[in-house]
Amino acid sequence: MKEIKIYCPATIANLVCGFDVLGMCLNEPNDIMYMKLLDEKKVIIHSKDGYKLPSDPAQNTAGAPLLAIIEELDQQIGFEIIIEKHIKPGSGIGSSAASAAGAVVGANHLLKNIFSKEDLVRFAMLGEKVASGVKHADNIAPCIYGGITLIRSIFPLDIISIPSPPLFITVVHPQIEVRTSDARQILRKEVLLKDAIKQWGNIAALVAGFMQNDYALIGRSLEDVIIEPVRSILIPGFDEVKKKCIETGALGGGISGSGPSIFMLSINETIAKNVEVAMKEIYQRIGLDHHTYVTTIKGKGVMSCEL
Amino acid sequence: MKEIKIYCPATIANLVCGFDVLGMCLNEPNDIMYMKLLDEKKVIIHSKDGYKLPSDPAQNTAGAPLLAIIEELDQQIGFEIIIEKHIKPGSGIGSSAASAAGAVVGANHLLKNIFSKEDLVRFAMLGEKVASGVKHADNIAPCIYGGITLIRSIFPLDIISIPSPPLFITVVHPQIEVRTSDARQILRKEVLLKDAIKQWGNIAALVAGFMQNDYALIGRSLEDVIIEPVRSILIPGFDEVKKKCIETGALGGGISGSGPSIFMLSINETIAKNVEVAMKEIYQRIGLDHHTYVTTIKGKGVMSCEL
Repeated sequence: MKEIKIYCPATIANLVCGFDVLGMCLNEPNDIMYMKLLDEKKVIIHSKDGYKLPSDPAQNTAGAPLLAIIEELDQQIGFEIIIEKHIKPGSGIGSSAASAAGAVVGANHLLKNIFSKEDLVRFAMLGEKVASGVKHADNIAPCIYGGITLIRSIFPLDIISIPSPPLFITVVHPQIEVRTSDARQILRKEVLLKDAIKQWGNIAALVAGFMQNDYALIGRSLEDVIIEPVRSILIPGFDEVKKKCIETGALGGGISGSGPSIFMLSINETIAKNVEVAMKEIYQRIGLDHHTYVTTIKGKGVMSCEL
Repeated sequence: MKEIKIYCPATIANLVCGFDVLGMCLNEPNDIMYMKLLDEKKVIIHSKDGYKLPSDPAQNTAGAPLLAIIEELDQQIGFEIIIEKHIKPGSGIGSSAASAAGAVVGANHLLKNIFSKEDLVRFAMLGEKVASGVKHADNIAPCIYGGITLIRSIFPLDIISIPSPPLFITVVHPQIEVRTSDARQILRKEVLLKDAIKQWGNIAALVAGFMQNDYALIGRSLEDVIIEPVRSILIPGFDEVKKKCIETGALGGGISGSGPSIFMLSINETIAKNVEVAMKEIYQRIGLDHHTYVTTIKGKGVMSCEL
């Protein structure tokens, strides 16, 4: 039976001023999955990592979308997968989205690409629902489409790919737990109209900056007057990290997804690596364990190949 | 003494989902101004129309910015202008901005272009302050820059030109008065975060639609869940006009500025003229006097030539 290997990339949701609508696909880190077709309606999940994620497919981020695919097709097929997670759950760089998106893109490969990318996003969102209770696509969309994506609407689904110039991304993951549900709960349900206007001026300018290859404009637009002031309180050292990274030459950045990871965008690798050093120095001084990555935008999303 | 003639175009502020940040310059209608330099510090204003606008320069939308220019330069110069207004004050298509922008661009022409466009926007905003009490640039920026403009920030001023595919614009001006101050006062100071997210998804998609020449995306993004539901109540027939115009083939549209004018975007002139017919039929039936225009985006803003 044909077996495939799947590379499931990390993603950054929100991108500072694009809360709930913007996302970016990263070249590193990636989860690895191996998948093959079965000839009966079931999903078997093996984990080759220490994260103790649920092996019951209905409770697993990769499993739930696969069950939905099986139900939709109503044929005698199933999937057996081995998951090697390298993107730590709860890090804020799209760990659950990588599992869900990887599973559906892999399944589609084995099924000879019968589904569109939009279909795949719909299936994969079921995995996000298992992970966080909410069907959202801010990580799923860039994970499947690659590059930078804008989700104009979820119902009906309207995903737009936003071209961008080359960017180097530095991510620091301080090893504390911020639950997505907590990070969502502390947000106010109402915001000042004047703040909302500032935010939509910034997101419009950020999209224009990406599409016009205008690094300075990208930098000026990476400003969040609504979410960051509330959520950054949950992340030790956030203000200092941000200030220091921008002094070091980063264009700007902020909270990745709902945190606790922090990301910064830079115009070249040298600056991105200096930014990494600055991040490490601060968390070493604070005494907080952390991982860092220096990477680039992945133009293609989840990729799979036959073994 | 050299005399110049100035064409001061109408503009549409907000563009549905871009409240306070987006604007578009129109080829029609235009105010006409004639201007010449004086050799003493004063501004003389003649009106060749029936609108009875203040002739005291400090109280006049064109006069106030010219006084500021004279003060800034501190030389023995002044300006004499004749204004022929064709853009009716209070129509919602940037009548005061046309006067203010026309005056400063004309003055800059006579002064051999010593000021940048940004400087001119700053001077012209003083005219908006005379007209409505608020320094805003949503009409001034497209009137001076031409095309579609995004104002990311007023302090400091950050104006971005957004390229777009050809568009035909139909405007109907129902002859009722909506004061900008009233239209602003009825807005709520707080908005739901979920509505704000929808709005910033739409404005980001609208900018992407303009820049990718994607007419369908432009149409889908022309949605305003925050301002239009409140302000449209002030405009008789608004819902019917909008519905009918979209059925007739317009991509979408909404309130121009703070109203009462309504604008619609179409992909060609035939549709734009059919949209005009639809607008006229509704206001004839309601029994409300109205003017209509069918026009295109003016790529260059205020233009001046020597006589």
